[in-house]
Amino acid sequence: MQETPFQTIGRAPRIGIIGGGQLARMTAGAALQLGCELAILERSEGAPASRIVAEVIHGDWDDPKMLLKLASRVDVLTLENEFVDANSLAKVEDAGHKLWPTSATMRLIQDKLLQKEAMAKAGLKTARFKATPNREAVAEAGAEFGWPLVLKARRNGYDGKGNHTVRSEKDIEEAWTALRGDSNGLYAEEFCPFAAELAIIVTRARNGELAVYPLVESVQKNHICHLTKAPAGHPEDVTRKAMEAAQRAISAIEGVGSFGVEMFLTRGNEILINELAPRVHNTGHYTIEGCECSQFENHVRAILGWPLGSTRMTAPAAVMVNLLGDSKGPGMPSGLTNALSVPGAYIHIYGKTSSNKGRKMGHVTALGSSVEEALAKAQRAAEYLKFGQS
Amino acid sequence: MQETPFQTIGRAPRIGIIGGGQLARMTAGAALQLGCELAILERSEGAPASRIVAEVIHGDWDDPKMLLKLASRVDVLTLENEFVDANSLAKVEDAGHKLWPTSATMRLIQDKLLQKEAMAKAGLKTARFKATPNREAVAEAGAEFGWPLVLKARRNGYDGKGNHTVRSEKDIEEAWTALRGDSNGLYAEEFCPFAAELAIIVTRARNGELAVYPLVESVQKNHICHLTKAPAGHPEDVTRKAMEAAQRAISAIEGVGSFGVEMFLTRGNEILINELAPRVHNTGHYTIEGCECSQFENHVRAILGWPLGSTRMTAPAAVMVNLLGDSKGPGMPSGLTNALSVPGAYIHIYGKTSSNKGRKMGHVTALGSSVEEALAKAQRAAEYLKFGQS
Repeated sequence: MQETPFQTIGRAPRIGIIGGGQLARMTAGAALQLGCELAILERSEGAPASRIVAEVIHGDWDDPKMLLKLASRVDVLTLENEFVDANSLAKVEDAGHKLWPTSATMRLIQDKLLQKEAMAKAGLKTARFKATPNREAVAEAGAEFGWPLVLKARRNGYDGKGNHTVRSEKDIEEAWTALRGDSNGLYAEEFCPFAAELAIIVTRARNGELAVYPLVESVQKNHICHLTKAPAGHPEDVTRKAMEAAQRAISAIEGVGSFGVEMFLTRGNEILINELAPRVHNTGHYTIEGCECSQFENHVRAILGWPLGSTRMTAPAAVMVNLLGDSKGPGMPSGLTNALSVPGAYIHIYGKTSSNKGRKMGHVTALGSSVEEALAKAQRAAEYLKFGQS
Repeated sequence: MQETPFQTIGRAPRIGIIGGGQLARMTAGAALQLGCELAILERSEGAPASRIVAEVIHGDWDDPKMLLKLASRVDVLTLENEFVDANSLAKVEDAGHKLWPTSATMRLIQDKLLQKEAMAKAGLKTARFKATPNREAVAEAGAEFGWPLVLKARRNGYDGKGNHTVRSEKDIEEAWTALRGDSNGLYAEEFCPFAAELAIIVTRARNGELAVYPLVESVQKNHICHLTKAPAGHPEDVTRKAMEAAQRAISAIEGVGSFGVEMFLTRGNEILINELAPRVHNTGHYTIEGCECSQFENHVRAILGWPLGSTRMTAPAAVMVNLLGDSKGPGMPSGLTNALSVPGAYIHIYGKTSSNKGRKMGHVTALGSSVEEALAKAQRAAEYLKFGQS
């Protein structure tokens, strides 16, 4: 086996993460365990990852100067969100720095229309979609796909923000205005009544090697991931199709690192690729305790050119429940002592300076001999934990 | 259930750790997951825990001024080694700060003669021992226990340092000189030919509640823990006796936090308490992946007055193999890519600035359906990892 550069430089590899939220924090935890050193670039004070890394550079992600400053302090750069401007990232690469995933991958993913086109080009199924440079194109999409359809911003959407359901031609104006279609690029997607929302984490190494995690079912509340159940428990052929599609999707965009692949299972048992996330993903948090090598550790391995780890589950089932803020308040929850009394519930508090309605403040994972058992345990602990209520 | 102060202060609890080695680092990792903030007091630059905590105070552990400085920044203090002067610790408590374990517990443990006396007073079996204020007392101990016996420093011994086997009366002078008996307090212990070295981690809460981990067998090489096998696999009555003794030992010294209890299993199937460590312990590193709540997380829970977590194993067996330095060299090992290719091996690199012969640089844990399976996996990965050879 070929030794990577990080074997022979005789010191700890240094990883720079663009962004300092909980994804950076959990990635840092995995990297530290393998002896790496870390730095982050983050706008705000007291961000979750700032408490776990040796070096925090305060500044703007989209500012190429700040990106270059971070890059100059580390051996390899990575990111925890898909919103960093691909042109700025390209400048960092042009200056000779290593970035994974690459700016080319980021460019494809951060524009959802390009992302969809890349999936189609790779022969992967998605809901039908169409560029809508103007209102007329939305009407054409409606005629083509039928109503309702979903009008989406090409960029910067997340957790349901940037989407608008259009029920008929006369709703177009409202949706166009709400999404500010005159200044934002939009596209239209066929409305897709699904049987289930599925997700898979795929880690792809620099040499193209793939590690694929179990198929999970993700349950959303108000367009935000509420819980994930692993394994999803669908028939073997569905599981196989989903795992194949997820791996092909990440190979198609030449992704390096851990990626979230969100999919729809249609009522006809078809798998449609819904959305790719070029980073560790909320639907993979269960892998910290639930798999032999977590999505975070595999991300670190991938970007350092190290061999990928085993994605085997450590128990028959794992369930993760998100902890969202109820309202403005402190970053620590009430009910912690009760939650800590639930045996086998793994409680993660992200250490944010404050809570807000809908803000991701932590999560709980539980393992079990069945999804039902793990779900009951995780939910029991999660129900005690309240952020912002008092 | 009563809410603790840390429930109601509306912010993250702050923990101060006296010392910044790998034990502080792993404790910090567990504390961060629960949303805590951390500071350490550490003499040297670039210590393992300094890369994972928000605040590093550089200074001497034994200096009450530095201890008070750390204490003033945090809600609760704890320590990662048994060598911090108990009188200095008492000054911190006298100033109104919370320290767990207390200076009283530390005083009992850091003097091994007092420790042995505390065990005897609690009705727990140990090898026979005797204070030896002078050479004559060593001769008397030999007459009483028979030869050989072990002459030991009352303080500051670890990993076999501070012990000397005395084969006969004419060896007394050599041992006395080697251990500098004229300036160091010494005591004599009966030589104890054991069938196995066993260890148990016990966590004791501030309210006296106990969490006890599985009985493990610890295999030493050159007086340093080489590997631990969990469970130890001894007959049920031996296991029960050992678990009872370990819990009684920690209750006897009113310990708060996680403690290592090292025991001998005699050839007559008796359990003798060998030594207590007032801190998380090398024989408990397997609990990170091997138990539902690790010794580190339970230590954090205990010192914060939070409920203790489940010590149930996550797999039928767990084996931990220590990674020791071979010689002077970098803190990152060679062979890492090969080791990372062993599926299911959990690799921990402590991030020390350099390796030295015998220095603890990391460890590998593996789980399995049997100790044999876990051992093979952990050893396979550990054998690749070399620190300091090149």
